[in-house]
Amino acid sequence: MPGKPLVAIIMGSDSDLPIMKEASKLLNDFGVRFEVKVLSAHRTPELARKFAMNAKRDGFQVIIAGAGGAAHLAGVLASHTTLPVIGVPIETKYLKGIDSLFSTVQMPGGVPVSCMSIGKSGAKNAGISALQILALRDIKIHRKLDLFRKDMVKVIKKKNKNLNLRVG
Amino acid sequence: MPGKPLVAIIMGSDSDLPIMKEASKLLNDFGVRFEVKVLSAHRTPELARKFAMNAKRDGFQVIIAGAGGAAHLAGVLASHTTLPVIGVPIETKYLKGIDSLFSTVQMPGGVPVSCMSIGKSGAKNAGISALQILALRDIKIHRKLDLFRKDMVKVIKKKNKNLNLRVG
Amino acid sequence: MPGKPLVAIIMGSDSDLPIMKEASKLLNDFGVRFEVKVLSAHRTPELARKFAMNAKRDGFQVIIAGAGGAAHLAGVLASHTTLPVIGVPIETKYLKGIDSLFSTVQMPGGVPVSCMSIGKSGAKNAGISALQILALRDIKIHRKLDLFRKDMVKVIKKKNKNLNLRVG
Amino acid sequence: MPGKPLVAIIMGSDSDLPIMKEASKLLNDFGVRFEVKVLSAHRTPELARKFAMNAKRDGFQVIIAGAGGAAHLAGVLASHTTLPVIGVPIETKYLKGIDSLFSTVQMPGGVPVSCMSIGKSGAKNAGISALQILALRDIKIHRKLDLFRKDMVKVIKKKNKNLNLRVG
Amino acid sequence: MPGKPLVAIIMGSDSDLPIMKEASKLLNDFGVRFEVKVLSAHRTPELARKFAMNAKRDGFQVIIAGAGGAAHLAGVLASHTTLPVIGVPIETKYLKGIDSLFSTVQMPGGVPVSCMSIGKSGAKNAGISALQILALRDIKIHRKLDLFRKDMVKVIKKKNKNLNLRVG
Amino acid sequence: MPGKPLVAIIMGSDSDLPIMKEASKLLNDFGVRFEVKVLSAHRTPELARKFAMNAKRDGFQVIIAGAGGAAHLAGVLASHTTLPVIGVPIETKYLKGIDSLFSTVQMPGGVPVSCMSIGKSGAKNAGISALQILALRDIKIHRKLDLFRKDMVKVIKKKNKNLNLRVG
Amino acid sequence: MPGKPLVAIIMGSDSDLPIMKEASKLLNDFGVRFEVKVLSAHRTPELARKFAMNAKRDGFQVIIAGAGGAAHLAGVLASHTTLPVIGVPIETKYLKGIDSLFSTVQMPGGVPVSCMSIGKSGAKNAGISALQILALRDIKIHRKLDLFRKDMVKVIKKKNKNLNLRVG
Amino acid sequence: MPGKPLVAIIMGSDSDLPIMKEASKLLNDFGVRFEVKVLSAHRTPELARKFAMNAKRDGFQVIIAGAGGAAHLAGVLASHTTLPVIGVPIETKYLKGIDSLFSTVQMPGGVPVSCMSIGKSGAKNAGISALQILALRDIKIHRKLDLFRKDMVKVIKKKNKNLNLRVG
Repeated sequence: MPGKPLVAIIMGSDSDLPIMKEASKLLNDFGVRFEVKVLSAHRTPELARKFAMNAKRDGFQVIIAGAGGAAHLAGVLASHTTLPVIGVPIETKYLKGIDSLFSTVQMPGGVPVSCMSIGKSGAKNAGISALQILALRDIKIHRKLDLFRKDMVKVIKKKNKNLNLRVG
Repeated sequence: MPGKPLVAIIMGSDSDLPIMKEASKLLNDFGVRFEVKVLSAHRTPELARKFAMNAKRDGFQVIIAGAGGAAHLAGVLASHTTLPVIGVPIETKYLKGIDSLFSTVQMPGGVPVSCMSIGKSGAKNAGISALQILALRDIKIHRKLDLFRKDMVKVIKKKNKNLNLRVG
Repeated sequence: MPGKPLVAIIMGSDSDLPIMKEASKLLNDFGVRFEVKVLSAHRTPELARKFAMNAKRDGFQVIIAGAGGAAHLAGVLASHTTLPVIGVPIETKYLKGIDSLFSTVQMPGGVPVSCMSIGKSGAKNAGISALQILALRDIKIHRKLDLFRKDMVKVIKKKNKNLNLRVG
Repeated sequence: MPGKPLVAIIMGSDSDLPIMKEASKLLNDFGVRFEVKVLSAHRTPELARKFAMNAKRDGFQVIIAGAGGAAHLAGVLASHTTLPVIGVPIETKYLKGIDSLFSTVQMPGGVPVSCMSIGKSGAKNAGISALQILALRDIKIHRKLDLFRKDMVKVIKKKNKNLNLRVG
Repeated sequence: MPGKPLVAIIMGSDSDLPIMKEASKLLNDFGVRFEVKVLSAHRTPELARKFAMNAKRDGFQVIIAGAGGAAHLAGVLASHTTLPVIGVPIETKYLKGIDSLFSTVQMPGGVPVSCMSIGKSGAKNAGISALQILALRDIKIHRKLDLFRKDMVKVIKKKNKNLNLRVG
Repeated sequence: MPGKPLVAIIMGSDSDLPIMKEASKLLNDFGVRFEVKVLSAHRTPELARKFAMNAKRDGFQVIIAGAGGAAHLAGVLASHTTLPVIGVPIETKYLKGIDSLFSTVQMPGGVPVSCMSIGKSGAKNAGISALQILALRDIKIHRKLDLFRKDMVKVIKKKNKNLNLRVG
Repeated sequence: MPGKPLVAIIMGSDSDLPIMKEASKLLNDFGVRFEVKVLSAHRTPELARKFAMNAKRDGFQVIIAGAGGAAHLAGVLASHTTLPVIGVPIETKYLKGIDSLFSTVQMPGGVPVSCMSIGKSGAKNAGISALQILALRDIKIHRKLDLFRKDMVKVIKKKNKNLNLRVG
Repeated sequence: MPGKPLVAIIMGSDSDLPIMKEASKLLNDFGVRFEVKVLSAHRTPELARKFAMNAKRDGFQVIIAGAGGAAHLAGVLASHTTLPVIGVPIETKYLKGIDSLFSTVQMPGGVPVSCMSIGKSGAKNAGISALQILALRDIKIHRKLDLFRKDMVKVIKKKNKNLNLRVG
């Protein structure tokens, strides 16, 4: 896919990659250009700041940010840009992502972060959410989203057929 | 503001109006057309469904949905449209909105809801979030968002001056 | 068992089957006809709606619905029928079912869902709960429920005998 | 309303009456006979036990039980009867009813309690839930439930009209 | 150890035995007679009631009760006796024992349960707690408790010596 | 009441007095001698230590300790004595006593604290719990406890009579 | 107090001033120079960054930061300096500061924040904590801290005298 | 490293060593002398008290304390010294360290504990936090901390290079 990436997928640590790949796979399937980066709000604040300040100028339309614990990444990026920022709370070892969720979702009035569910389903939905925003000006993505929805119905209808064989 | 509304602000009960007005005030300030409606996922499922199914055709670009408790409203609307749906968890009397938050944010992979913080700041951020999406194709909104950010800085700088008089 | 099913067991995903089988096993043991279906509140809203709207006409007396996360399934079904709807919160990977519990139990006044405990014991109790409702007009089920209770006492009495051999 | 009561509304303390009246009001509106009693699982275990053991024989079809804190009432009643028992977790001063919710809903496999939401909406839904069970064999209650649903839609439609005057 | 048992160790399910053995081991080490029983508040309410009503007459001085989930066992036993009842919240699969804790500890004024920590350490402490009560009238147990404390100090002192070899 | 006090009621701050008076009132009603003291685990560790080390020698049989937040008081007292220590978690302004509860109840194996419910009902139950321990060797207290139970039944029976006038 | 301030008290909003004054009062009492500033991690990220980057050069020894909700302030300041950063979680309207606590305390390995308790007691302790750090190289502060501790003991001893008049 | 240790690493149980080694490794890397000890607030209160009372005289500048459950260790040490005390909440089996966190962080006004995040990252940050305090008077540690920060940036930059190879 030539051309500049439209979506940035930022994660606080490369250990978050197996989670955040749910977002990149989806963008890939839809043929939308994206870039993946590790940027820590706490360990690389300057890199995170520069990325966010230049994101609009660099052609990005949506930023997806995944982080765990005191998950400040999405909020820090959002403080440096007016692009839509989608936050994915990553599971933590002890508090199971409730800390990540509160740190991502409870943003003060004025600087929003669009928070998804915890973990893989959240990362997948971050990808779909970015696509829904892009679809507002791109009829091809819009049509693909409609097909994506119809496929979900087909999958479940098929599962119901198999189900009858498994119960009883 | 003539023309069709671009943003729908849906709430589960008219008692949520004082909260959700934070979103409508902001859209009003930015000169963006919107519509406000009470639609309950549980008490008026047919009305909610029809609204969501027709929302794109009716010209809406973004849906904001606020609800409390087993807050299914944003999820139910999102199940009937591929427009971006922004969810605002409304405070509840007993569990203080933690139930609304979980019911809004923990959506399964495939059907995203963009969850904001609980209550008024969340409603305000839902408005800003909608504007950030619209700003991707509307340079005027984009510029106003930049000014909005700069105003926040001015307000805090001014508060710091007053602060020195209040401490010590 | 010929004739129309009296109880519907609906689940949000076929991965919930190992949990929800606790309900079907029990209905099977009691000789009560039932049907098992995968219907997602979010991915197949039209299928879920149609099922619920027709459930009474189709002869169902009780609906059991199991779902996890932002578990809207029981609530969505309840919004389309006045049949008793029993909700089973399914465990989630990160929040361990507390999200499923809040999304299932915290229904607004007007549209009840009868919430069971999280996971397998909840699914089993959903089956018993359906039987207790059916027993109000079916003396055979009523008698079987009495025997079921007596069996539980026998099991525990027997365990106490074995216990004495294991402690000491 | 002459004849034996069909629904029992039991509460752990008479201070729970303002909450539990939401259930009795509804049964009253539907013309269903009921009885209200204070019975504590801990302070009057013998009274609670005798009530539950005789409830079926005394003509009751459904038991509603509201209690707070280590809310054992619904579970204790359920242990002595196979009638459907609907539990209403009452708000507590410190933990806000999360303790009542867990104590009511997390019943072990074998002895179900149908748990409603915390507080007033839960009590109201307990009433509706009881009516939905009774409606399975009483066409009049069934029709009234349908009207009750339609009235909810009317109320919301009316609210939407007033809403337009309040926003903007 | 001839004679009647002084302490009863009751558990809601025989699957709780590996936890509750922490209590029986300790009583065994101190030479205090005890009895272990499975009694469920919900599945065998009559057995539980009779046990508790007769416990004092049967010579018991302290009752230890371990249960999980909507853990009503300790509360139900306490409602039928004025003997000290010590509750041990057993871990649950999904909510990790926070449900057991709330159901055990949040007893209403008038009927106390002495709640221990969740799981094995709680069961062990239930044993010690029972011994501390018995020690008020038994100088031998009192002295053994003092030695038990001193042994804990010795163990930690010894660990500190080994620690120096492991760090550095 | 001449003679040495048998029960000590210790609180972390004199602001806890309105809560802890629930315990002292009860002991007073039963004619049991007690002493009330403010001792902070953190602000007066030496006073707390000396009190606990000498408590047995000074004739105390039971120690009741109420504290809020990182409520270390009961645990610190328990670390210096083998007398039964009953802990009352006091409500806190922000976390509503869940912090006090965890800090009081989650004691490590070896040093038990008997935890009561949060706040006033917990303080009242601490008093009853102390009486239940003392009753093991004092037949008068035992008889009064039986009467106390019977009075609770009478109160509830009376409330049921008044209830009939208030409902319907 | 002439000379450069040693401690910075930063808060996310001037509405936090009544809380954070607990810290400034204490520093004032100890004669330690400090500066109070409103700096928002999200609304004024550049001001917050510059302050933290220059804090050491400007002579600060300790930074105290109070914020609520998705409380990123302490973490953001800590990411730009190696000075000790003490975080005070400010109570929030809905989640009561549990969100602020998790967002402040759950910092990733590499960039610590020293988290205090929620609200006023936390702000007070932030002041004492700063003083304990400064006391390592300032014998006067060290002595004052010792006196401060002794005063706490005196206050409690005095309260015990008054207590005897209030109980019984 | 000759000379007296500057930092004490205290843990409630030697099973906490794998967690607390994160702190000792870091101090070792920075060439700062430290001592590791097992001291239980509950099982060895006298040892803990003596250690804390003498810590300053013995040359310690900072105390790090890790404990789980009703984690009183940091608070108990802090009650006997005015040295900075850094608390590390250790994960517990059932409540996952939320109990340890509340017991460590919710200290009353007057006696601060600097609380780190739960588990290994918290122990590592306790080490860094101690170094940040020592760095105020030791330019070498200060420089090493700056390098440590720069190394974190290098590591993440390098990870970004590898990332491009893994995505796509």
